[in-house]
Amino acid sequence: MLIVQKYGGTSVGSIERIKNVAKKIAATVDAGHKVVVVVSAMAGETDRLIDLAKQIANPPDPRELDALLATGEQASAALLAMALKNMGYPATSFIAFQARIFTDNAFGRARIDQIDATKLKEQLEKGNILVIAGFQGIDRQGNITTLGRGGSDTTAVAIAAALKADVCEIYTDVEGVFTADPRVCPEARKIDRISYEEMMELAGLGAKVLQIRSVEFAKKYNVPIHVRSSFNEKEGTMVIDTDAEMEKVVVTAVVHDKNEARITVKGVPDRPGIAAKLFEAIGDAGIVVDMIIQNTSEEGITDMTFTVPKGDFQRALEIAKEAANKIEAEKVMGDEHIAKVSVVGVGMRHHPGVAARMFRALADAGINILMISTSEIKISCVIDEKEVKKAVQALHKAFNLGEGRV
Amino acid sequence: MLIVQKYGGTSVGSIERIKNVAKKIAATVDAGHKVVVVVSAMAGETDRLIDLAKQIANPPDPRELDALLATGEQASAALLAMALKNMGYPATSFIAFQARIFTDNAFGRARIDQIDATKLKEQLEKGNILVIAGFQGIDRQGNITTLGRGGSDTTAVAIAAALKADVCEIYTDVEGVFTADPRVCPEARKIDRISYEEMMELAGLGAKVLQIRSVEFAKKYNVPIHVRSSFNEKEGTMVIDTDAEMEKVVVTAVVHDKNEARITVKGVPDRPGIAAKLFEAIGDAGIVVDMIIQNTSEEGITDMTFTVPKGDFQRALEIAKEAANKIEAEKVMGDEHIAKVSVVGVGMRHHPGVAARMFRALADAGINILMISTSEIKISCVIDEKEVKKAVQALHKAFNLGEGRV
Repeated sequence: MLIVQKYGGTSVGSIERIKNVAKKIAATVDAGHKVVVVVSAMAGETDRLIDLAKQIANPPDPRELDALLATGEQASAALLAMALKNMGYPATSFIAFQARIFTDNAFGRARIDQIDATKLKEQLEKGNILVIAGFQGIDRQGNITTLGRGGSDTTAVAIAAALKADVCEIYTDVEGVFTADPRVCPEARKIDRISYEEMMELAGLGAKVLQIRSVEFAKKYNVPIHVRSSFNEKEGTMVIDTDAEMEKVVVTAVVHDKNEARITVKGVPDRPGIAAKLFEAIGDAGIVVDMIIQNTSEEGITDMTFTVPKGDFQRALEIAKEAANKIEAEKVMGDEHIAKVSVVGVGMRHHPGVAARMFRALADAGINILMISTSEIKISCVIDEKEVKKAVQALHKAFNLGEGRV
Repeated sequence: MLIVQKYGGTSVGSIERIKNVAKKIAATVDAGHKVVVVVSAMAGETDRLIDLAKQIANPPDPRELDALLATGEQASAALLAMALKNMGYPATSFIAFQARIFTDNAFGRARIDQIDATKLKEQLEKGNILVIAGFQGIDRQGNITTLGRGGSDTTAVAIAAALKADVCEIYTDVEGVFTADPRVCPEARKIDRISYEEMMELAGLGAKVLQIRSVEFAKKYNVPIHVRSSFNEKEGTMVIDTDAEMEKVVVTAVVHDKNEARITVKGVPDRPGIAAKLFEAIGDAGIVVDMIIQNTSEEGITDMTFTVPKGDFQRALEIAKEAANKIEAEKVMGDEHIAKVSVVGVGMRHHPGVAARMFRALADAGINILMISTSEIKISCVIDEKEVKKAVQALHKAFNLGEGRV
């Protein structure tokens, strides 16, 4: 098999850990596989570099910040290749220009648009282990770009797609994808198989195990992802195309996110273009809005509620107040103490009544729902932050997630 | 003017110092010049990276060590470009593959063999300040290489040659090249102008102000080098082609080096191939021999003495002992407590009696000469380490170096 393995910052966070990773790779090679490795920067290194940059200029120039940050992965790739060679395994490190990973020129959040894998394939055929610096690319002018936090996942999947690897293993500090956060819900169970779509929803809803773009990539090129622990040998979670068996299950996981805040603009005149004015102002400030809800208008007056990341709450509130003045809204209210709980499952498409079952479970637990948002395969409810634990446990139970799949 | 400025590790050793360097560059731009900057890694960074590598493997793989070390200059180049942009000066950082600095593939001591300056020139014409990571290159296969300690000097001179710059300014923590080390000889005086050849001899004899290869490069492409302090505005030393005035001076500088040790192989049968056997064994161990002296043979038996870097002394001694057995030499002796003092000057070519004057000065100071070696423009004597200070002061006085040129 041709296996792409990705090791995150914690997995290569010290010299000892780099040596351990080298042993894991060597064992995979000894088992008869070809291995391509993608590494993140050593844990803490990216933050150290960002801190240096901010001491120079705040905000630092995006092009130069990317050139600076890319050194973190370059260093860990070189160190890991050294460790492998020292154990007698032929290995070669690659940074983006060497691996020919091309991106657009959106510094700090670049997207991979092409990998020219000719040279990588040559090296693989020579029996080399390839150790590729994750998180980075070059644009068509040869500028160094980075893919955003978690970008090494995307590098790994893109490399796996370009090399037509059999599997892309993402090594992390958890044992896989769980039916809920085990710290919040002790009954949470590791999921053996999950679909790309479900995984994308989970990533979008706050599950930190995979960068959402890496899953999009995997789905597009049909790369099986295996999320597993770098600290033991257990099988983790396979992220794959939907299969018939998955569809039998209504809900695959419960996920929660405490990193949002809610803003309500009350008494908005219900005229065309009002929503545009409000959200353009928010968007221009670089703030990403998650949920947006507008109730049916009564007598030409409506309320508009939306959520933003907690870190942007104060700024978003100021902007909303200014905008409210301009659009002659009545008032603006904010609430930082909210959380979002969601249930996700491809089976929802074919099973009616999932929403009702979710609302019933929350009601029975005495939890008030503040906002609701749905997609084809997920239902999200915003609730009081204090109720998160109770809500996750109630939903986990209501959808029988502790009992295993089937 | 087009000016290449090189800043060493001390000059960019902290965030504050990087900001100061940015101000110096901005002042040069404000004075109407075009500026290309070459930077070293922040002081201490290269040692930190070498230490990491040695914890992984000792010795670390040379290719991967170079990939690791190159991150140091990449980071400081990005930080300096950020600082300039933050001050409103357009600046762009370049690492080796972006600046198209090509070398051979001798990792750790690569030689620059070509710079494709097309892209650099384009950027310069746009009015950009170029900030180039020193010390690194890429070979024809795209591997990252490094040029050895002090390699950023060579990068700067090579870039100056490729861009046909008017001058290459090397900013350092001393004010220029001195007639002797001021810490050893208080009468030492800054030299205003020195020839490439003299500077090469000085660099080869232990003066640390410039990497010898950078001077070779400067001579080859006739690039004027200005060695000056990054902490004040004073004029430093110009390293240029020999001119008539220089030739009037017999000796330009006295230089000493305490970093050598001496090994003597006594009672060597004087047969063809004996010297080859001994020095092949030393060379195979990667030890660089400096001086070699063989006395005239008496009755088919001779003595051979050579010097090696102090750090290689024990190993060289072992190897010499083994070799001595094979070539049936009598015995091997070693002395770590030696030093080399040299006088250098292009004027020597036309002035007889310089050697005699040197030996007389040392004799008058009561210093015993252990070894002698000469070239066209230098005379070196090995003496007891304890006599260095006295010797340098005596020679500085004997050649009237304290009195200024002419």
